[in-house]
Amino acid sequence: MIVINSILKAYKGNIIFTPEFGKYEIVENGYIVVNDRLVQGVYKTLPEELKDTVVVDYTGKLIVPGFVDLHFHAPQFVNRGLGIDMELLPWLETYTFPEEAKYIDTEYALKAYKKVVHELWKQGTTRAVLFGTIHKEATKILMDLIDKSGLSAYVGKVNMDRNSPEFYIENTEDSINDTEDFLTETINKYDLVKPIITPRFIPTCTGVLMDGLSELASKFNVPVQSHLSENRGEVEWVSKLHPEASSYSEVYNQFRMFGKTPTVMAHCIYLSDEEIKLMARNNVFVAHSPHSNSNLISGIAPIRKLLKAGVPVGLSSDISGGHNASIASVMVQAVQVSKLKWVENPEYSEFEDFLSTPEVFYLATKGGGKFFGNVGSFEKDYEFDALVIDDTELSDLNERSIEERIQRYIYIGDDRQILHRYVAGRKIEEPKFD
Amino acid sequence: MIVINSILKAYKGNIIFTPEFGKYEIVENGYIVVNDRLVQGVYKTLPEELKDTVVVDYTGKLIVPGFVDLHFHAPQFVNRGLGIDMELLPWLETYTFPEEAKYIDTEYALKAYKKVVHELWKQGTTRAVLFGTIHKEATKILMDLIDKSGLSAYVGKVNMDRNSPEFYIENTEDSINDTEDFLTETINKYDLVKPIITPRFIPTCTGVLMDGLSELASKFNVPVQSHLSENRGEVEWVSKLHPEASSYSEVYNQFRMFGKTPTVMAHCIYLSDEEIKLMARNNVFVAHSPHSNSNLISGIAPIRKLLKAGVPVGLSSDISGGHNASIASVMVQAVQVSKLKWVENPEYSEFEDFLSTPEVFYLATKGGGKFFGNVGSFEKDYEFDALVIDDTELSDLNERSIEERIQRYIYIGDDRQILHRYVAGRKIEEPKFD
Repeated sequence: MIVINSILKAYKGNIIFTPEFGKYEIVENGYIVVNDRLVQGVYKTLPEELKDTVVVDYTGKLIVPGFVDLHFHAPQFVNRGLGIDMELLPWLETYTFPEEAKYIDTEYALKAYKKVVHELWKQGTTRAVLFGTIHKEATKILMDLIDKSGLSAYVGKVNMDRNSPEFYIENTEDSINDTEDFLTETINKYDLVKPIITPRFIPTCTGVLMDGLSELASKFNVPVQSHLSENRGEVEWVSKLHPEASSYSEVYNQFRMFGKTPTVMAHCIYLSDEEIKLMARNNVFVAHSPHSNSNLISGIAPIRKLLKAGVPVGLSSDISGGHNASIASVMVQAVQVSKLKWVENPEYSEFEDFLSTPEVFYLATKGGGKFFGNVGSFEKDYEFDALVIDDTELSDLNERSIEERIQRYIYIGDDRQILHRYVAGRKIEEPKFD
Repeated sequence: MIVINSILKAYKGNIIFTPEFGKYEIVENGYIVVNDRLVQGVYKTLPEELKDTVVVDYTGKLIVPGFVDLHFHAPQFVNRGLGIDMELLPWLETYTFPEEAKYIDTEYALKAYKKVVHELWKQGTTRAVLFGTIHKEATKILMDLIDKSGLSAYVGKVNMDRNSPEFYIENTEDSINDTEDFLTETINKYDLVKPIITPRFIPTCTGVLMDGLSELASKFNVPVQSHLSENRGEVEWVSKLHPEASSYSEVYNQFRMFGKTPTVMAHCIYLSDEEIKLMARNNVFVAHSPHSNSNLISGIAPIRKLLKAGVPVGLSSDISGGHNASIASVMVQAVQVSKLKWVENPEYSEFEDFLSTPEVFYLATKGGGKFFGNVGSFEKDYEFDALVIDDTELSDLNERSIEERIQRYIYIGDDRQILHRYVAGRKIEEPKFD
């Protein structure tokens, strides 16, 4: 008992989490008992046998699971808020591809990726699924920096060997070989930072490349991320490139990269009912990116419909299609666009209600956290990822319930109120790389 | 010359404004010459005859017109981010009306309104059109505080004598008399803070009250603010209350409160073509409130269509239907919802394009500023309302144009980058009322 107790800690504060979709569990000034990195239990008062546990006292503060961002292009971070009036193609050509091409320079990558990691820390994003660039060296630098910060992420070296600009495209064989090297070097290197297979999306990847990548996914048993059904033009393009497949999702599926290992797909706006069933069957995650889908005029993903069909869903900033790396801001936008879909689209609203705050809270924590395992909740045996929020400066002249206070933080708070961040039981200090 | 020159000042920096809708005028490290409170001219280099002018050096910073908020319920400020999952009626009953009713207590009003004025200052909102409550004393306190801060506003004592909760409703005669007292006491009291007639909206105001208010508007020659066509249920309600009128707008018009004096109407989502023509003819301003219209599931106002018809449009936070008092955030939301309307509504998108950043910049400055006269631009004889923005911490590893920097500030900046605020030529320090 003494040995075990020595690594136990109890965090005291107003605890909020969502074991079930859309339903807060709230313990006012209760205790989260953490055994090294895992939650042992949540208590209103400390049980007798735990009464000697060291208490970290955050009385009056809010304690919530850390935010999870399922889709974020790390090299595009410097482009946030730029080119937003452009159509998708000029935007890619003017801002995205030229920027990503710069990461062949590892010095540049180091400088730029320090900013990314700092921002993840600042915004309380404790877990992220990141796109890098086609460059394995730069991508390894990103992983190193995240590891040093103590945050957790899946990080992918991007693959693209067709329909890409001359200055930013790979030879198929090099793409596969570089990916294999990248996986070999990083698969066991870190505790909380892991590689992920990252074909950019179907139009930029030949069948040979996709075959090679799916073999690597199986061989190394690593997850997969990509884009799916972001806008109507893209869906049409894929159907022309792959007339043999019955849908966009089927193309990934035929290449055995649609749930054979854990898979997350960004966007998922224009899916057929068959595709949705396939996603549910294969447990393919949706990275819902409402800021990006608004900025790039993509549309509004039918999140309630996807959830009802049993598809796992998390939230994502989609930097820099999305401009805002704050997952709280993404939560607000997710609610807002679901309401606009409801009011502007009578056919949809007849069947599907808009999203509530506790629902997007779930998506931002446990919904996306599932991609990492037992993450995003304070249930027993979940990794203790947490944010301690001091919302004093948001307070008004009235007493508010804990539920009201968390909603208020999500809607009007920002990074200034995040007092502390924890990942897997460890307190994460501000990254200072220099 | 010497006497005149003694009140001249030149502000040096990267100057951005929009004399025309949707078109930036940018002068890199140029000079805005201000004569007391009015802009005398903008220059790339100071002309010979002005070379002795005192230069306030903001080289490298961005200088933009102060932001204008055309619709903001001051007493609801403390409710920001609360009750957002509720339908409109429960929200009004649970949060809005009980809160507004508290302002009968002038001590409470004083405390709460200090927070409002501080927030306007913080967010760079140099001019605002505010709803108060039905209480003339509390509303006068709000005006006093704004005057002390140096900011500028129209402030209205709200009128409502029907279809309102028992605890928050006026007797018709008292409502009119209180309003007359309020106007008498405030009409000439301040330089930059003025009263405005404020019937809450048609459903809460009897014909007798509306007649009384329109007489006061004419007698005191003061502007009018109210709500118009926020959601479909409300439009239907008004048509049942006023079967004699051909439209919601016509009801206001028949009561001579639709442009007889300067008039601003919040929302304006579901207007007929006839109503839009009437607004244009009567020069009735639209306070476009995209955050509120998303949060309250109201819909997406057809801003491009309104503008094309010649209706003047500005932006508004609509606190607390909208949760965010930052007009920059409202600009982003205005662009985003215009894009969603475009992509989700093929009938509309066939005729009307979405909004661009320089277009919402215009709406946030000169568009709304017109309601105050020569406000919201740096053209000659405009009041010098300005924000000095230091965007250093938003900078990335690349050189960016001034146009890119202002877009980036709007999308990813916040109050932390606003270095200074000016209203009518005067620098406004942080309000400290205690």
